[in-house]
Amino acid sequence: MAPPVASSRSQSKSKTADIFSSPTVDSLGLFNQDAIGDAITLKSSSSGDSLYQEELDHQCSNCIRFLAVDAINKAKSGHPGAPLGQAPIGYLLYSEFMQFNPANPTWLNRDRFVLSSGHGCMLQYALMHLTGFDSVRMDDIKEFRQWGSRTPGHPENFETAGIDVTTGPLGMGIANAVGLAVAERHLAATYNVDGLDLIDHFTYCIAGDGCLQEGLCHEACAIAGHLSLGKLILFYDDNNITIEGSTELSFTEDVSMRFQAYGWHVQSVADGNQDFSGLRKAVKAAQEETSKPSLIRVKTTIGFGSPNKAGNEKIHGSPVGLAEAAAMREHLEWEHGEFEVPDNVYDVFRTHAKQGALAEEQWNASWCAYQKANPELAKQFQRAVIDRSLPTDWQKLLPSVQDNDKALASRQHSQVCLNALAESVPELIGGSADLGPSNLTVMKTAKDFSADCYGGRNIHFGVREFGMAAVCNAMSLHGTGLVPYCATFTVFTDYMRNAIRLAALSKAGTIFITTHDSVALGEDGPTHQPVETIPSLRMIPNLVVMRPADGNETAGAYAVAILRSKNLLGPTLLCLSRQTLSKNEGTTLESTKLGAYAVCECENPDLILVGTGSELSLAMDAKEALKPLRVRVVSMPSCELFRAQSRQYKDELLPRSVPKLSIEMSTTYAWCEFVDGCIGINSFGASAPGPVCTEKFGFTVSNVVSCAERLLQGERGTLSDGSMCE
Amino acid sequence: MAPPVASSRSQSKSKTADIFSSPTVDSLGLFNQDAIGDAITLKSSSSGDSLYQEELDHQCSNCIRFLAVDAINKAKSGHPGAPLGQAPIGYLLYSEFMQFNPANPTWLNRDRFVLSSGHGCMLQYALMHLTGFDSVRMDDIKEFRQWGSRTPGHPENFETAGIDVTTGPLGMGIANAVGLAVAERHLAATYNVDGLDLIDHFTYCIAGDGCLQEGLCHEACAIAGHLSLGKLILFYDDNNITIEGSTELSFTEDVSMRFQAYGWHVQSVADGNQDFSGLRKAVKAAQEETSKPSLIRVKTTIGFGSPNKAGNEKIHGSPVGLAEAAAMREHLEWEHGEFEVPDNVYDVFRTHAKQGALAEEQWNASWCAYQKANPELAKQFQRAVIDRSLPTDWQKLLPSVQDNDKALASRQHSQVCLNALAESVPELIGGSADLGPSNLTVMKTAKDFSADCYGGRNIHFGVREFGMAAVCNAMSLHGTGLVPYCATFTVFTDYMRNAIRLAALSKAGTIFITTHDSVALGEDGPTHQPVETIPSLRMIPNLVVMRPADGNETAGAYAVAILRSKNLLGPTLLCLSRQTLSKNEGTTLESTKLGAYAVCECENPDLILVGTGSELSLAMDAKEALKPLRVRVVSMPSCELFRAQSRQYKDELLPRSVPKLSIEMSTTYAWCEFVDGCIGINSFGASAPGPVCTEKFGFTVSNVVSCAERLLQGERGTLSDGSMCE
Repeated sequence: MAPPVASSRSQSKSKTADIFSSPTVDSLGLFNQDAIGDAITLKSSSSGDSLYQEELDHQCSNCIRFLAVDAINKAKSGHPGAPLGQAPIGYLLYSEFMQFNPANPTWLNRDRFVLSSGHGCMLQYALMHLTGFDSVRMDDIKEFRQWGSRTPGHPENFETAGIDVTTGPLGMGIANAVGLAVAERHLAATYNVDGLDLIDHFTYCIAGDGCLQEGLCHEACAIAGHLSLGKLILFYDDNNITIEGSTELSFTEDVSMRFQAYGWHVQSVADGNQDFSGLRKAVKAAQEETSKPSLIRVKTTIGFGSPNKAGNEKIHGSPVGLAEAAAMREHLEWEHGEFEVPDNVYDVFRTHAKQGALAEEQWNASWCAYQKANPELAKQFQRAVIDRSLPTDWQKLLPSVQDNDKALASRQHSQVCLNALAESVPELIGGSADLGPSNLTVMKTAKDFSADCYGGRNIHFGVREFGMAAVCNAMSLHGTGLVPYCATFTVFTDYMRNAIRLAALSKAGTIFITTHDSVALGEDGPTHQPVETIPSLRMIPNLVVMRPADGNETAGAYAVAILRSKNLLGPTLLCLSRQTLSKNEGTTLESTKLGAYAVCECENPDLILVGTGSELSLAMDAKEALKPLRVRVVSMPSCELFRAQSRQYKDELLPRSVPKLSIEMSTTYAWCEFVDGCIGINSFGASAPGPVCTEKFGFTVSNVVSCAERLLQGERGTLSDGSMCE
Repeated sequence: MAPPVASSRSQSKSKTADIFSSPTVDSLGLFNQDAIGDAITLKSSSSGDSLYQEELDHQCSNCIRFLAVDAINKAKSGHPGAPLGQAPIGYLLYSEFMQFNPANPTWLNRDRFVLSSGHGCMLQYALMHLTGFDSVRMDDIKEFRQWGSRTPGHPENFETAGIDVTTGPLGMGIANAVGLAVAERHLAATYNVDGLDLIDHFTYCIAGDGCLQEGLCHEACAIAGHLSLGKLILFYDDNNITIEGSTELSFTEDVSMRFQAYGWHVQSVADGNQDFSGLRKAVKAAQEETSKPSLIRVKTTIGFGSPNKAGNEKIHGSPVGLAEAAAMREHLEWEHGEFEVPDNVYDVFRTHAKQGALAEEQWNASWCAYQKANPELAKQFQRAVIDRSLPTDWQKLLPSVQDNDKALASRQHSQVCLNALAESVPELIGGSADLGPSNLTVMKTAKDFSADCYGGRNIHFGVREFGMAAVCNAMSLHGTGLVPYCATFTVFTDYMRNAIRLAALSKAGTIFITTHDSVALGEDGPTHQPVETIPSLRMIPNLVVMRPADGNETAGAYAVAILRSKNLLGPTLLCLSRQTLSKNEGTTLESTKLGAYAVCECENPDLILVGTGSELSLAMDAKEALKPLRVRVVSMPSCELFRAQSRQYKDELLPRSVPKLSIEMSTTYAWCEFVDGCIGINSFGASAPGPVCTEKFGFTVSNVVSCAERLLQGERGTLSDGSMCE
């Protein structure tokens, strides 16, 4: 509970006391918005009294600082350095510049905010509390970093309404901010008509030295500059300190010049601790520069206000402690107790939040007008953006393969699927990290997404896998129904692995299209041939990995991926072949969704062969060669989907009592979950024509037959590991 | 075979014909160096005839181009675009500027060369053939990209002597070049005394647009600038084309300004196709600028010389075909047949190579003088650098834990090990991606490595995990006995995963020290808590992952890691706890090397509990609680090392007939290789104090006992997946 307490600056208290004459702060420390009433339009920044304003600026910033210090002290864990330094930036954003409505954290046209220096999340929690988000009541702040709380140790969109993306891994937030800005520009270009702007907002981001050093930041900011994302505003908290000490130790590049090289608008604020006027000017200039993304480089002091620890790396990641908190209170002349928020501070923030609520009301009115003026587009907006639903019968657009169809690589089937959906699912948007012609990920009826054409849907991400993935994640988490996809070679998921992980964690609906999914890609050799890649991706919780065997399963994979994406359930990763695949009997789109199923059924089998992707046809061929043995052939396009089936289905498909043999051109270790023996590759690949590789690594009918016989004789485990060729 | 053929430019032929009067080209197309004789000192570039020189420049460049075109045509696979454009750069490096001896590809003080645009490897193979490397005979070139050849589809150091590092994944080569330059500066500072310079060489690198776009390039080049690596020279093949088309599509940043921001010396050559004089001047200026790394931005035409395909993205990755090769021959007035090399071209390259052999002879003389002048340092150089051996009894320096020792986290044990070795193993060099105080990876007796102190051994890599890892890999592959280590949190191995993979593939001896290895790290929450990370790393071939349970096993892990590193067998990755670990009975350094062993033996066990790292003590506690059941407790610090044991050892330790239960705070799927039931975590972690997390995720004695009972009753598979808390 945060009872109104006399402010140390009684002058400000008296000026705002009128609106607290009724009990406007509830028992949870939440300001009761209704009690304010529509009549209140006082905005702190509109006061002509600049001295008063200055005091208020300090007071609001200090309030944020002490909420952070107190919560971190109470948790005995956390990162006070960043919130103390970034408080003025956060204060101005959440009390003056950002447009949002705490009562509706998902309002489509809100400004987006990303705390890329996510370890400093108490900044964001303090701001969200002060502005009145129900998700961050004072009790939540007191539960900072505790089991089950809504205030975890880094901002998590899936735990706390009002957090747009999950950050913590450095650089990720910046790249997410770029993705949010991409989504904004795309939707604006797609839907805004004749002055009725459904989507038109800024994306703000705060990042520290650590974020700026990451290659991920480089990739994302280079894309942002290339795309002239003028509504993106990045604050660089330039505090000269990283965990190991002074930035002189490792980080001496000219960051401003670097961002100019990217095509950004760059400003500096020399005293970010106290120069509120300078900060305000910089934000306004950044807002006005709409042809370039803006970097505002703000010199701050890490741990500002802590008399004994400010400016030192030790305050980055440890509570300041009670004694230092007391010293800070004295130093900053802060007379309030732990977790106490002065009324006038609440007032400043919640008055601004009220304006956000009004803005949403205005938006609702615009939306009504829009529906009348543009009924067709409004219908699409309603479905795709607001309802986040898919067109009726969308799944029927996906192709099914007939016996007389030409055999194709699964990357080609993927291209067919993508293009089958492209027109009816206009929220599909994506591209490749410069491998479009290989990944086959271009939507032929769509234009390129560029600074000249934000309505385009084919994105050229450049050779920037990590940035690409993080951008796509944020496009999904923009929450406006976009279905983003991105593509590279399977092996280069390594480059973007943490973004795949963050998609899974934060339930971003990114579709990762990966091609060249085995040693069968051939001559490019081991640097390009995935061996461990697919099994290792299957380890990531909430990632659905799909390795379809042919056109029907590729269509099934798309059916799964798009539904997961649209419903923000999480990412789906497709593993597709470079080489042409034989056609298989028994595959269907619907069965694919089961994760595993029999393509060649057999009562009381002697043996079960389990194949994935390109190896399914080998399993089928081996079955023929194994006659008269009774062999069931199971296709397993997705281990994760199969795991989700009923115990009965799983036991009947793969009974414990029947010897089971997996065939996949990958490391074998994880296959023992499902089978008794494995054929795989436990070493790196080799440069040679694809068919030579597959043969040399043991993917032949004769080797499968031989391994099956050994299995039936009682051998277990990895029966063929690719080393037969050596 | 490459018989001497009349050159289209008979003028040059006549000038060099004298040295071909004896049969100097052997049956494999290899120039016989002995036949040249020491007397020949003619150097093509010393000719006063500039017209002749110009012709020769073109001829040599074109010879490279046609070797590339012909080999790629023959292979029906490959990337002609880059070699055609980069031929002049490669020609000048290998015929004039680089110091190396093809007869001894491992000469310590050779200049290093990295083709970061590794897909263009026919450039490097052509150059290596022309200069006389035995590893690239003409027959090898004709076997380009074929099974078992020494000319795989990307440059691979482990296949082809004379290739310094393995490239292909974009950006990797640049980062490796930075690592080679770091190694050079460190060894120079450590060993060069009084004008006797044992190590003093340049590192050259060629990279294309793709490499320059990667975040990895950003990280590595930022480090290089920060460290003032003046002997690093990077050619940027600026050909305006990436796979998807013009760089206008995605890559419009000002690269020169960006590198200036990093603190690099930047030059441009406007016509890299034909302006040999401009290229020479730029290289000389880059060599002379020793206080900054140099970028030479060379405008080239992709596929230069191909009349119908040059300048187009389609020539990047497909053979030009026979017809276009013929058209090229006409266009460039090249009268030689497929795989034909004119004598005078061989002459140019091999005359220069001869100078490299002389340089090595001079170096050998210096080394003799050095041994007399600096016997102590010479002894160290002989052991650490030349012999690449470790000090006698080095392993005895590693600590063993006694019963009365204070319990520590394994990251603390790691710090003890590192510091125990630091003085006696001066080739240990490394650091953290700005997490030194958390990873505990500082060698207390060593100085910081910096531009002012290259002799330092504690490297501040900055928040640049991927760059760090690639730099360390190259320090190992510098081949001079360095034992590089690098550190970050376990979960952020995601950021550098492809560098870990490349270390494993290319047998780099990098030691990856990762800490905060489970949900027990606590409050930082799921973005920081590895769950799938360790099992997924175990999938990488030739990577040894070690998760030690206490001080003895941490010492064992170091014993393994350092030996692997020093012998260039491959990388080792340590997974260490943030939290204090209970002490265990039965652990020893030597047993750790087995990968798995019984810490609590038991004849005819009813049950076997298998634990790793921090979970070993839980297994021990559960064993007590399971009495009177006979329980064997097995510690498995490394699955990979255990797999390498004899079949008998494995069967005896983990008999098929005894129910076995694994306990590890990771995803369970791969554990089925070794056990029948698993306790693990198959979802993401959560933010809360570490002990709360471990309990909530099921890592309690009571849950282990309960799972053990279910296992004994016949249940199989994942018995506890962390979801009990939800």
